[in-house]
Amino acid sequence: MDGPVEGRVEQEISWLLDRARIRELTARYNRCFDDGDPDGYADTFTEDGVMEVAGGPSTSGRNDLAEMCRKIPWGVMHVTVDATVDVDGDSAKQHVALVVIRRAGRPQDKPQITSTGRYEDDLVRTPDGWRFARRRCTLDGWVEK
Amino acid sequence: MDGPVEGRVEQEISWLLDRARIRELTARYNRCFDDGDPDGYADTFTEDGVMEVAGGPSTSGRNDLAEMCRKIPWGVMHVTVDATVDVDGDSAKQHVALVVIRRAGRPQDKPQITSTGRYEDDLVRTPDGWRFARRRCTLDGWVEK
Amino acid sequence: MDGPVEGRVEQEISWLLDRARIRELTARYNRCFDDGDPDGYADTFTEDGVMEVAGGPSTSGRNDLAEMCRKIPWGVMHVTVDATVDVDGDSAKQHVALVVIRRAGRPQDKPQITSTGRYEDDLVRTPDGWRFARRRCTLDGWVEK
Repeated sequence: MDGPVEGRVEQEISWLLDRARIRELTARYNRCFDDGDPDGYADTFTEDGVMEVAGGPSTSGRNDLAEMCRKIPWGVMHVTVDATVDVDGDSAKQHVALVVIRRAGRPQDKPQITSTGRYEDDLVRTPDGWRFARRRCTLDGWVEK
Repeated sequence: MDGPVEGRVEQEISWLLDRARIRELTARYNRCFDDGDPDGYADTFTEDGVMEVAGGPSTSGRNDLAEMCRKIPWGVMHVTVDATVDVDGDSAKQHVALVVIRRAGRPQDKPQITSTGRYEDDLVRTPDGWRFARRRCTLDGWVEK
Repeated sequence: MDGPVEGRVEQEISWLLDRARIRELTARYNRCFDDGDPDGYADTFTEDGVMEVAGGPSTSGRNDLAEMCRKIPWGVMHVTVDATVDVDGDSAKQHVALVVIRRAGRPQDKPQITSTGRYEDDLVRTPDGWRFARRRCTLDGWVEK
């Protein structure tokens, strides 16, 4: 059970599990934010977790993260795609692309993409599962290219 | 092989496999519907499977599902992202976000997002693999917010 | 270790690992192309890999692939979703949907979808991991429907 071959397979299975759990954590982040669940949103971070928008605001700690989520009016949809996840023991890094869509609130409205960008995430394994220690979001067009 | 640790690992590997199979089933649902394969589309459901649009039509059984698919003209692209999957024995629930895009049929046309929404899916494990027992789709904007 | 049950489980775990690696390879393809890393882009292919656009250009070999990437101006975002992956030994096929978005370069710009399509990919397992042997991309609207 401890030979080099078995050890490598176990490590790869661990990566698969961690990767899937981190992808689902990210899905919950999106859904909680977009459907108005501030506590669920804050719970995707560690107690002192940080959400930083490059060139924009930075928010620290679950209380402030929940408050920030509470203030955003309905209508945002976060889509995250094309992730890579690297795990090192109880730490992980995720790089994932972001598309933000304006949802239609009425039948006559049309949804549209409002921004694109990237997340660079630092995650930690906690007794409750993976949590974001820090998310850094870079949005295209915030600074001239 | 039956100790608590090994049992948990096996359970997590089972979840990984079920999750990946359900994600691929959902991909086939999208592709069959969008590329005009009514029988392939109907086969992603159980024999008596139900597709329900909240506030809209409900379609039951493979024959009617295939017929519904057959009537839709070319031009729809279903994109599903940010899924969470919970498995309980031979049943599963998937929550997944939806973006519907109008595909360009001619070089001068531009694709555009026509709607966003959510699927809440009930799935069952069959001898042929996972199938949708019931999909419930909620589209943004069908009812005023 | 070689019984029919254990063999099947090992095969399914292998598929899970191969599928996740191929999904991450595809994510790197998108990110390298979109963020201007021609060598990283070319490295997602085998040395003699081919990128073919149905009804459009075909590019072969890492040198030409890197050169093609180098010439594309900033502003493209590849989004790939709803993949199915079939593995046969050291070969694999991926079918994955594509959405191409025009990124905003300035605060006053709005991103928009410029095309949708499909990739049909042939991959091979190399000592450095999975690589694209051939990608064939079909874009909607290039030929009248």
